[in-house]
Amino acid sequence: MEKCLRYGMVGGDLKAFIGEVHRKAINFDTRAKLVAGCFSIDPVLGKETAIAYGVDMSRNYLDYKEMAEKESQREDGIDWVSICTPNFLHYQVAKEFLLHNINVVCEKPLCFTIKEAEELEKLAKERDLVFAITYTYTGYTMVKVAREMIKKGEIGKIVNINVEYAQDWLIDSLDPKNQKATTLSVWRSDPKYSGISNCIGDIGTHAENIVHYLTGFDIKRLVCTTDNYGMALDLNANMILEYENGVRAALWCSQVACGHLNGLVVRVYGEKGSIEWAQEHPDYLHVTPKGEPTQTWARGGSYTMKYDAGHYSRIPVGHPEGLVIAFANIYKNVITTILKKKNHETVTEADLDFQNVSNGVDGVKFIHKAIESSKEGKWVEYK
Amino acid sequence: MEKCLRYGMVGGDLKAFIGEVHRKAINFDTRAKLVAGCFSIDPVLGKETAIAYGVDMSRNYLDYKEMAEKESQREDGIDWVSICTPNFLHYQVAKEFLLHNINVVCEKPLCFTIKEAEELEKLAKERDLVFAITYTYTGYTMVKVAREMIKKGEIGKIVNINVEYAQDWLIDSLDPKNQKATTLSVWRSDPKYSGISNCIGDIGTHAENIVHYLTGFDIKRLVCTTDNYGMALDLNANMILEYENGVRAALWCSQVACGHLNGLVVRVYGEKGSIEWAQEHPDYLHVTPKGEPTQTWARGGSYTMKYDAGHYSRIPVGHPEGLVIAFANIYKNVITTILKKKNHETVTEADLDFQNVSNGVDGVKFIHKAIESSKEGKWVEYK
Amino acid sequence: MEKCLRYGMVGGDLKAFIGEVHRKAINFDTRAKLVAGCFSIDPVLGKETAIAYGVDMSRNYLDYKEMAEKESQREDGIDWVSICTPNFLHYQVAKEFLLHNINVVCEKPLCFTIKEAEELEKLAKERDLVFAITYTYTGYTMVKVAREMIKKGEIGKIVNINVEYAQDWLIDSLDPKNQKATTLSVWRSDPKYSGISNCIGDIGTHAENIVHYLTGFDIKRLVCTTDNYGMALDLNANMILEYENGVRAALWCSQVACGHLNGLVVRVYGEKGSIEWAQEHPDYLHVTPKGEPTQTWARGGSYTMKYDAGHYSRIPVGHPEGLVIAFANIYKNVITTILKKKNHETVTEADLDFQNVSNGVDGVKFIHKAIESSKEGKWVEYK
Amino acid sequence: MEKCLRYGMVGGDLKAFIGEVHRKAINFDTRAKLVAGCFSIDPVLGKETAIAYGVDMSRNYLDYKEMAEKESQREDGIDWVSICTPNFLHYQVAKEFLLHNINVVCEKPLCFTIKEAEELEKLAKERDLVFAITYTYTGYTMVKVAREMIKKGEIGKIVNINVEYAQDWLIDSLDPKNQKATTLSVWRSDPKYSGISNCIGDIGTHAENIVHYLTGFDIKRLVCTTDNYGMALDLNANMILEYENGVRAALWCSQVACGHLNGLVVRVYGEKGSIEWAQEHPDYLHVTPKGEPTQTWARGGSYTMKYDAGHYSRIPVGHPEGLVIAFANIYKNVITTILKKKNHETVTEADLDFQNVSNGVDGVKFIHKAIESSKEGKWVEYK
Repeated sequence: MEKCLRYGMVGGDLKAFIGEVHRKAINFDTRAKLVAGCFSIDPVLGKETAIAYGVDMSRNYLDYKEMAEKESQREDGIDWVSICTPNFLHYQVAKEFLLHNINVVCEKPLCFTIKEAEELEKLAKERDLVFAITYTYTGYTMVKVAREMIKKGEIGKIVNINVEYAQDWLIDSLDPKNQKATTLSVWRSDPKYSGISNCIGDIGTHAENIVHYLTGFDIKRLVCTTDNYGMALDLNANMILEYENGVRAALWCSQVACGHLNGLVVRVYGEKGSIEWAQEHPDYLHVTPKGEPTQTWARGGSYTMKYDAGHYSRIPVGHPEGLVIAFANIYKNVITTILKKKNHETVTEADLDFQNVSNGVDGVKFIHKAIESSKEGKWVEYK
Repeated sequence: MEKCLRYGMVGGDLKAFIGEVHRKAINFDTRAKLVAGCFSIDPVLGKETAIAYGVDMSRNYLDYKEMAEKESQREDGIDWVSICTPNFLHYQVAKEFLLHNINVVCEKPLCFTIKEAEELEKLAKERDLVFAITYTYTGYTMVKVAREMIKKGEIGKIVNINVEYAQDWLIDSLDPKNQKATTLSVWRSDPKYSGISNCIGDIGTHAENIVHYLTGFDIKRLVCTTDNYGMALDLNANMILEYENGVRAALWCSQVACGHLNGLVVRVYGEKGSIEWAQEHPDYLHVTPKGEPTQTWARGGSYTMKYDAGHYSRIPVGHPEGLVIAFANIYKNVITTILKKKNHETVTEADLDFQNVSNGVDGVKFIHKAIESSKEGKWVEYK
Repeated sequence: MEKCLRYGMVGGDLKAFIGEVHRKAINFDTRAKLVAGCFSIDPVLGKETAIAYGVDMSRNYLDYKEMAEKESQREDGIDWVSICTPNFLHYQVAKEFLLHNINVVCEKPLCFTIKEAEELEKLAKERDLVFAITYTYTGYTMVKVAREMIKKGEIGKIVNINVEYAQDWLIDSLDPKNQKATTLSVWRSDPKYSGISNCIGDIGTHAENIVHYLTGFDIKRLVCTTDNYGMALDLNANMILEYENGVRAALWCSQVACGHLNGLVVRVYGEKGSIEWAQEHPDYLHVTPKGEPTQTWARGGSYTMKYDAGHYSRIPVGHPEGLVIAFANIYKNVITTILKKKNHETVTEADLDFQNVSNGVDGVKFIHKAIESSKEGKWVEYK
Repeated sequence: MEKCLRYGMVGGDLKAFIGEVHRKAINFDTRAKLVAGCFSIDPVLGKETAIAYGVDMSRNYLDYKEMAEKESQREDGIDWVSICTPNFLHYQVAKEFLLHNINVVCEKPLCFTIKEAEELEKLAKERDLVFAITYTYTGYTMVKVAREMIKKGEIGKIVNINVEYAQDWLIDSLDPKNQKATTLSVWRSDPKYSGISNCIGDIGTHAENIVHYLTGFDIKRLVCTTDNYGMALDLNANMILEYENGVRAALWCSQVACGHLNGLVVRVYGEKGSIEWAQEHPDYLHVTPKGEPTQTWARGGSYTMKYDAGHYSRIPVGHPEGLVIAFANIYKNVITTILKKKNHETVTEADLDFQNVSNGVDGVKFIHKAIESSKEGKWVEYK
């Protein structure tokens, strides 16, 4: 019975924020070891990363295709690859590893086109491979508790939703003088590397995803406005979503909203209560049962521990966990699932509590529909 | 030179919340005295109100038409009438007093149809009468400070707006079992007394108005969804507004959003900074200059006093003022304007800092356009 | 049966903040009329105040002794006097009116010495006069709700208390260059007008009072440090109080704590729960039942209305009331008590829910014990 | 030149919260590897821990003395030991490793008596060994930024300090029925394992330490009350501290304060400004420059990056870091210091930014003085 997995990484050199987060998060689980990588197109930086993490030089690749090929042939080959490259490479890298029957964990958004997304989904399903998408915020304990509360009907039938994801890190690009420089320095603002959307693709998709994660609702149609302010891609978007069950959600995302740091805030209103969660204070959840005062639930509190999801909590109540642990919670389930499959054990629904390639497809579709609505100035149906 | 005015009131008996607020607010100014009223259709309650406020019985009317007629003929007749009736009476009462050349202060929304609204506007202008609409929240000092900051360009060119007004007092009407009873007991939920909208007409209009007050922006088009949940009128609405200058705003209003009390929150984002104001903590304003930490401005703070609007502050910093004083600030300007006109003094722009019949017309138009967009499922142009 | 009272005021001219607050607050009750006053030592300002409030010139006094004398002889003399002078006049003015059998409402602190305080207490009791002290913060609805919760045992036996009252309006007087000017311009910082203490006498006494109001506890002993920073009187003080039942409280007051506006915050911890109330957001109360999440109670919320004290609420939930209404709540009970006594009706315990001369004596004693402990550098016993 | 260190751990088995935190934190640095341990008195649990972390069985010790002995003799012996045992073992374990010339990182409090503490301090100094104490909260970036601001004089001369550390996890022990069980299950409440204090030794010492860390002030005298509520050791304490420069601080710590989770809050007031930091939202710092609005500084914000300490930030602004990264920041400096010493490089003051054995001595002294003051009911001098 295997107890420990081996993984590789494409992208995510030492200087890349998100690669580090993935590695620290995986380490929290102590059930997987980094053994291979194709960390950077810069060979020096790639090598440094390999050394820092003790990756053997024979498995420090310069070409991800070679990596997929060689790792698939080794007996001690990697059990999965974590893809931390810029968006435009997700599709080709993911496809390569799937074709070599290697499980995939990929950053969001999954890829550029719906067709590509569906191709990856099909490949993963046909080959029965795990394909996780790291929609980070679904990893926070209190998001999971909120989801469980909603599932159990504790806030009743949902009647309205409000979600926003506001940042201000691109505010300087509002100034025409800075726009060229921004496009050069921020790959997300360049269609070549980012696809048809910047803001919606980068953060709007998280907002859409967290609502789906919490409620299970599927979008029926949406109306959207985007603001580019002179840039090639959107920096701000306002939307109304209508789900198949008729419930509506307002969704706002922005990279130019002065004063917002990483302001993902989701609020779900039901007939019997409501919940509110804000990413910057992730260990807390605001719950209002109908007719009662608003309650501030804390991760690790005894009342939270009455929920299965409460047990994702790792450190005691009142001691902040933070983003890396949210990632660790995602990987925890990914690793359990891969391990169980490897050991021919039964994978449970709880093990599968991570966003997968189908959620990735949803994300790509959402980006396309939103941009379409904005361009055509009207409601756009999903079907 | 007159120093003190006389006023009358239609509606607003002792048991009515808003009539009391008007009277206390006017009293804060110590420049006007209540001398006449037609407070209630219940003569006993009307009389009790008159007695409590020392109104002479000869000026305690049962019929507002009689009141308009008689007061207009007295030498010491009222200088203005405050209309605090349910919505469906605003038009006829306001018209009657205008026709008798008496200034009017009216609760929002002004009336039911755009035609009626424009008729009242025309009447007031022709006769050069003051016609104020008590959009309460424009009376708060920190809203006025925010407006001055925006006017002075301190947050730069505006790029996006987010406004919401959420309450939960009608949440019980989500349950079909309660809907008949709600319609009977809450006049706002009955089209007969409330017109074509409940939620948008009651609170959505405040949200729209405060953005206009802060920015001066006029709406070009909007898209809206409304949720009635089985009731005759809307209880929840999501909108995207587009202003004539291309700026967009998300607007959400709800009377069924569990956990929200009187949650008017407005956020205006500019190229150089942003402001956020929340009605439940009205003495504070959150200001973020670009690239700097978010600041919490307090009414009465020395930095606030550098703004003309800062001087609306009446009690020292840190001591809460509250809703009545917001009303008092509106009446302060209304009274000054009426007094100056009476004394043939020059009325300044600062004196006219209250919402007037034209803002009332805008409010009625907004309600109609929003309902239209919701019904037709598309963007609706203003022109 | 009398339904309306007449009152007079000593101090509190138009330019004085607190006099205005008293008058607006009394007006909220619509059961008392200002008919006499000795508003200022400046006759011009006094007259202006009288005119603004419609006080007949024959009852606009220049000498409070004459006022007490003449009003006591009129058949329509004042039912009570509100004393809004600087601290150093409280004793003599209060005494004069008591000696003329006129009820008194006096600002805090009651007077300068324990002996004087006890003399006033004795006088009021002998003559069966109402003698209220306007400890403002006891007037807030949510403070009263907290008190009722504690009384009903809902937070269990109290185990610890933390109270602070921090402001920063005198921070400039930390600079030796400003100290002379401060002493001249701020009477509270001058022993002649303020007695033995500035900070403790001005705001520390509120902190001590609110704990007593909430819990009923009497102090057994205390230890205190004061910081004058070069001024004649204290600007900052730290204390530990021990009550007769052994419970301890930390008390901090300051007029030089940068960033604090009017920061009275009181927290009471019991075996079964805790409450926290902050003056700057007075419509809310934070309640934590043991083992449950912290709850934010709102004035006017249905759950608040289950408490008798909840019914002090005057305007709907979510609409801020503010300081003037806290004062109005104090006067409501004072007026009811005086009216009932005048009409020979039974005064209930609920009517007497205002701070009286005995609480005033406690306040004076507290100031003296705190200063004594600070000077002697040791614990000081009350008895 | 060495680039990577080897470390061992005493205590901290898989089930122990704090051992896990140490290991994850060290891993964040990727410059040290766990190679030896004496993790538990339970051999099964110890072995499991060793396996989980890949520690060779030959270095999985059952006896810490054996571990010190053998590791000191190996060429590839550990560079330091991290001590994560209950308090009562700190002294003997630390001493043993010091005597074998191995650097030490020890949990707080250092040990039970001042004599023991000074002995350890002497040993470490004589042998020129690194001896760090993990006062966790000094590791947070925003605490370090606050310290730098204070050092640079940005809030001016300090005039008052307020610090509290409140929790409620022992509230059940207020009930006499639970006290015996608590003593058995919570080693901190048993003098045998915890020394003369529970609450002050566990969390009060953090409160004292963070003030010293921020200001550099040394205590001159203190007055303290403790509340045991029937237990052998304190569960709550109120103090006033006086520093050698005359500045005072109020300090409150509690394990029975209902509603507080891990509520360390420190506020430092200066002549030119103030800072406030709360552990539960560690990525933010509230700063109020005199005469300006309060500012909310965020870790990672560009204005924060103007401070050297800002660069402790690891993940982008708005993405929470949490407790483990605070620990990682402490270990970062410890590891740098040990590495530099090993490589005969110059250790800078910045490298030494971690709490050391002398701070540990201060902590033990503080606990003793506080308990002494409480017992004797008077101010206690440090010298």
